[in-house]
Amino acid sequence: MSTEGQVITCKAAVAWEPNKPLVIEDVQVAPPQAGEVRIKILFTALCHTDAYTWSGKDPEGLFPCILGHEAAGIVESVGEGVTEVQPGDHVIPCYQAECRECKFCKSGKTNLCGKVRGATGAGVMMNDRKSRFSINGKPIYHFMGTSTFSQYTVVHDVSVAKIDPQAPLDKVCLLGCGVPTGLGAVWNTAKVEPGSIVAVFGLGTVGLAVAEGAKAAGASRVIGIDIDPKKFDRAKNFGVTEFVNPKDHDKPIQQVLVDLTDGGVDYSFECIGNVSVMRAALECCHKGWGTSVIVGVAASGQEISTRPFQLVTGRVWKGTAFGGFKSRSQVPWLVDKYMKKEIKVDEYVTHNMTLGEINEAFRYMHGGDCLRCVLKMQD
Amino acid sequence: MSTEGQVITCKAAVAWEPNKPLVIEDVQVAPPQAGEVRIKILFTALCHTDAYTWSGKDPEGLFPCILGHEAAGIVESVGEGVTEVQPGDHVIPCYQAECRECKFCKSGKTNLCGKVRGATGAGVMMNDRKSRFSINGKPIYHFMGTSTFSQYTVVHDVSVAKIDPQAPLDKVCLLGCGVPTGLGAVWNTAKVEPGSIVAVFGLGTVGLAVAEGAKAAGASRVIGIDIDPKKFDRAKNFGVTEFVNPKDHDKPIQQVLVDLTDGGVDYSFECIGNVSVMRAALECCHKGWGTSVIVGVAASGQEISTRPFQLVTGRVWKGTAFGGFKSRSQVPWLVDKYMKKEIKVDEYVTHNMTLGEINEAFRYMHGGDCLRCVLKMQD
Ligand SMILES: NC(=O)c1ccc[n+]([C@@H]2O[C@H](COP(=O)([O-])OP(=O)(O)OC[C@H]3O[C@@H](n4cnc5c(N)ncnc54)[C@H](O)[C@@H]3O)[C@@H](O)[C@H]2O)c1
Ligand SMILES: NC(=O)c1ccc[n+]([C@@H]2O[C@H](COP(=O)([O-])OP(=O)(O)OC[C@H]3O[C@@H](n4cnc5c(N)ncnc54)[C@H](O)[C@@H]3O)[C@@H](O)[C@H]2O)c1
Ligand SMILES: [Zn+2]
Ligand SMILES: [Zn+2]
Ligand SMILES: [Zn+2]
Ligand SMILES: [Zn+2]
Repeated sequence: MSTEGQVITCKAAVAWEPNKPLVIEDVQVAPPQAGEVRIKILFTALCHTDAYTWSGKDPEGLFPCILGHEAAGIVESVGEGVTEVQPGDHVIPCYQAECRECKFCKSGKTNLCGKVRGATGAGVMMNDRKSRFSINGKPIYHFMGTSTFSQYTVVHDVSVAKIDPQAPLDKVCLLGCGVPTGLGAVWNTAKVEPGSIVAVFGLGTVGLAVAEGAKAAGASRVIGIDIDPKKFDRAKNFGVTEFVNPKDHDKPIQQVLVDLTDGGVDYSFECIGNVSVMRAALECCHKGWGTSVIVGVAASGQEISTRPFQLVTGRVWKGTAFGGFKSRSQVPWLVDKYMKKEIKVDEYVTHNMTLGEINEAFRYMHGGDCLRCVLKMQD
Repeated sequence: MSTEGQVITCKAAVAWEPNKPLVIEDVQVAPPQAGEVRIKILFTALCHTDAYTWSGKDPEGLFPCILGHEAAGIVESVGEGVTEVQPGDHVIPCYQAECRECKFCKSGKTNLCGKVRGATGAGVMMNDRKSRFSINGKPIYHFMGTSTFSQYTVVHDVSVAKIDPQAPLDKVCLLGCGVPTGLGAVWNTAKVEPGSIVAVFGLGTVGLAVAEGAKAAGASRVIGIDIDPKKFDRAKNFGVTEFVNPKDHDKPIQQVLVDLTDGGVDYSFECIGNVSVMRAALECCHKGWGTSVIVGVAASGQEISTRPFQLVTGRVWKGTAFGGFKSRSQVPWLVDKYMKKEIKVDEYVTHNMTLGEINEAFRYMHGGDCLRCVLKMQD
């Protein structure tokens, strides 16, 4: 029996209030309107951005909402005018849209498409500025334009990447956020050249993907920095060649790195979200050319600072969102690279659980052992 | 009678103590040692960096010293092993050396040659770590490796640009600092493309050279920002197309510019040395690609800051020293461009005075009308 055009009632993890356990609810998911796509989510991973908004610290967080933005699924139905995907297509929902028409997309200089931002930032769909999720008539906000902690979700068509149907969805769901962010920070934002010395601050999923990207780009040294020594062993498999634990040193970490590299690194990446580490990451860069990329997301209201002399003497300070990848165009390309075994994905999955175990899964995520925990969404 | 190999006694303006008037003294200038060049300075301009060190606020300032770094002259004699210039050559002393051999020069990524930095930073010559200037046996420190407020000076050979002997030295002396800094910030550091919207903060010599460089690069709009409305009329001749006086607005200046440009400028340049303006210059840049270049030099100890989100959403923060120009290779090229009337120089000279009037000249420099004041050094 086709569900097309029907309201679907399914399970979703609802964040009713900040910092209270998520509740698995029966949610009504309205059919997609013009330019929208309804997706059956098969697998979703958890990311720190979900936890951040859930915690209540995100001033733009809206409640009640359905979190989740790193997932894979199958198109269930499409709204009017949707031409690029059809029911049955395997897809990855993308929190960073790509419309190919707005000022940002046309610039060729950025992946930060602006088309649906106003709506996704407000937790609604662009068409009628309303949510497609409700519980007994009470609307539940969307999150990041994806809301993948639901068995079915509705997204804008500009936010759907159609991928190879052979790709294992329980793995490639990771290509919706953390792994591309790290790889793209190296390939698109920094453009690391062969022979470069690279420093990676923070060896979680994002930092390890930076290390992997740097190795693929031909970096001669990839120095991993983490305060948790448990991260070091695993990081070798991702391309990290040397480790520094700031806790082992009395000197500021930027000085330790400058000494270790005869003047500083060529590229550094902050993959933690800590503003004082962001400063250290800039200041450990080599005079004249060292480039530091901010990847981690700091808590709202926090600021970075440094002496302007750091920049006047040639260092460059940048940042990246989704690694600079154009989502609809390049996520399928990343899936293909994974299928050809050119990039790792399986290695980032440390835990597999189910939607019903989501609260426990978040507790794992905050433990030191977890990279990515993937939830099976359907029974 | 040749002075080669002899100590030359000549006039120089000596800064005996911070913030006390400069004193015209008879100074002994020793002959150049190996790898050194003695230059008869014909014209020198004043720059804010001279005034900053003189003021005592520069923690690296050494006294007594001979300031000055924007000048032109003729080689009087050369030390052992100097092959690229000979007596009689017309030259511009360059505070930023270019050895073509050090890690920095070889990188191809920066103009910040490191060869003589250790010595010039300590106010001495590299060969024997001593000064070539003395008064009755008491050594007087060098400044920036140039010390052009003297009728004769000694510099390292890697700090001498040989130029077209037809070029008027009372004009091209300006190609030793301020004008190249502004032009190069646009051409080398930012690499402004045709059609770009550019904001220039501060319409002194450096800011006007940025405007001129932006116009030459094909910028569609060059927005000049200054708190002194007297600067606006003159700036039109240098390519500024619109003016904003922050004092005319209640909103923060970054917001004024974002509103004026439908989202922000493509490139911005801070040419003042004010850390809060540096922040505004970054934050008025367009999301996704806007690049801000710090050109002004802030007082020691001051810091820049912003929210990291500014960078994560695609803005880039850079800086420049001497506009990224490789001094020995490119200053002669700038002189040639001036001779072909492709860049302005004469228009920046607002005052002409003599060495004996140097204290008065500095007072003019701090007045609003002055761009560059050029001193005639010989009687
Ligand atoms: N810019 C983007 O588009 C984007 C996308 C995804 C994630 N992120 C952000 O990237 C960051 C990293 O994500 P993740 O999933 O890898 O997180 P994670 O928590 O798994 O990894 C962070 C690592 O940093 C280490 N760490 C913490 N404090 C440290 C310190 N002071 N010095 C050194 N190491 C320290 C931790 O031990 C941990 O190994 C987060 O801030 C996340 O929000 C950004
Ligand atoms: N990076 C380098 O290599 C380099 C080289 C030369 C000069 N500089 C620096 O460049 C800066 C500019 O030099 P200059 O010779 O053009 O100086 P200047 O004093 O002639 O010009 C500065 C201008 O800024 C304006 N201004 C001051 N405060 C302002 C504010 N809050 N908002 C807007 N405008 C303001 C002034 O009215 C003036 O017109 C100085 O800091 C100088 O030290 C840097
Ligand atoms: Zn994420
Ligand atoms: Zn777009
Ligand atoms: Zn100067
Ligand atoms: Zn050099």
